[in-house]
Amino acid sequence: MTTQPLSPTPRTTVTRGRNRMLDERAVLHEVLADGLVAHLAVTVGEGAAAHPLVLPTAYAVDPDGPDEAGTLYVHGSVAAGWLRASTDRTVCVTVTHLDGLVAARSSFHHSMNYRCAVVIGQARLVEDDAERARALDLIVDHVIPGRSATLRASTRKELAATSVLAVALLEASVKVRAGGPVDDPDDVVDGTWAGHLPLRLVAEAPVDADDASAPVPADVLDRARSLGRA
Amino acid sequence: MTTQPLSPTPRTTVTRGRNRMLDERAVLHEVLADGLVAHLAVTVGEGAAAHPLVLPTAYAVDPDGPDEAGTLYVHGSVAAGWLRASTDRTVCVTVTHLDGLVAARSSFHHSMNYRCAVVIGQARLVEDDAERARALDLIVDHVIPGRSATLRASTRKELAATSVLAVALLEASVKVRAGGPVDDPDDVVDGTWAGHLPLRLVAEAPVDADDASAPVPADVLDRARSLGRA
Repeated sequence: MTTQPLSPTPRTTVTRGRNRMLDERAVLHEVLADGLVAHLAVTVGEGAAAHPLVLPTAYAVDPDGPDEAGTLYVHGSVAAGWLRASTDRTVCVTVTHLDGLVAARSSFHHSMNYRCAVVIGQARLVEDDAERARALDLIVDHVIPGRSATLRASTRKELAATSVLAVALLEASVKVRAGGPVDDPDDVVDGTWAGHLPLRLVAEAPVDADDASAPVPADVLDRARSLGRA
Repeated sequence: MTTQPLSPTPRTTVTRGRNRMLDERAVLHEVLADGLVAHLAVTVGEGAAAHPLVLPTAYAVDPDGPDEAGTLYVHGSVAAGWLRASTDRTVCVTVTHLDGLVAARSSFHHSMNYRCAVVIGQARLVEDDAERARALDLIVDHVIPGRSATLRASTRKELAATSVLAVALLEASVKVRAGGPVDDPDDVVDGTWAGHLPLRLVAEAPVDADDASAPVPADVLDRARSLGRA
């Protein structure tokens, strides 16, 4: 962990809705810990043809990773274009939780409740074998805690087919909105409703693969339980 | 609607995992219709300092909008930096549904089930008053169908504070993964489990604002019902 402020540069300084900005590293780590999918944006193409591309991806966080303020990891096929385009370039990784829909009396004050973490940094291709193996375990365990310890080691062929990128958690911002609508006082008249609809991601019962020949393991059941069952 | 192929240019031609790519405009519209939040990526900064930024945002689709193949709309404060940076620039808008976690016998074959639509195009600042008003209604109604008709008209001040961006649905790609893991045959041995954990976003009971003085309206109840109740 670090004593660096969450946004040491203007790139991650929130300019709009500063009341929803939280300058606390602990909140950043909570939002990242609760997420399952990140949206990674990279610039692809060159010159006038350059444009941003944003794709969903699994990820993991190592608070004690080698980068300043900890390390965020993503992985992909060595053949993935977005991964090659990201290497040694500045990327943006955003993790968003949609927590609710906010219904006000006016169109203008409709909103959503959310928690959103934005991390900006140069993507480093992880070349050290030990760091790469650890990052891949962390990604599996981020999705289903405890699972990597139950699996065989990755083969040399599997490792050769997989690239891992690391982004320092140094430059980040977190925004959170919660609660009900904020209506204009003039719109609050008797006989009108406003409020919010909380949302959450839940797990249904685990589905066995056709070739499964054992009961659902504890790690998968725990994952379902921690998300909340449908 | 259009008879254009979903990806008329290489920018949205999927190069990896082509088996998960769906070249059907109907599927694109389904994935966009089911989503609540888009992740919009834009290049901010200039020259060597340019980098991508990706933020979550509400959106709506007008299949009969003025752009070729229909129009995707997002909105924001006129003061929002990402919105100014997007205008007349190429942006990428991605809508992702996380449908499940896939637990295989190997780390390598762990995966997620998802539906993901990626739209790339030049963002046009909507300046026509009628198109702007329609787009704002569509965004409210995308989140809570039928709601805009129950609200007062936006004031001139509210409209002046809000910018709307339009992106043509011409260049897009859709990828879908569903079902259980695909394990290496050697890993499928007696006494091992594999499978997947379906996930879904559900609504909890609507929460009244402190100043609500009417029962929860039908549009909000319908939205909760269509998402599925917790």
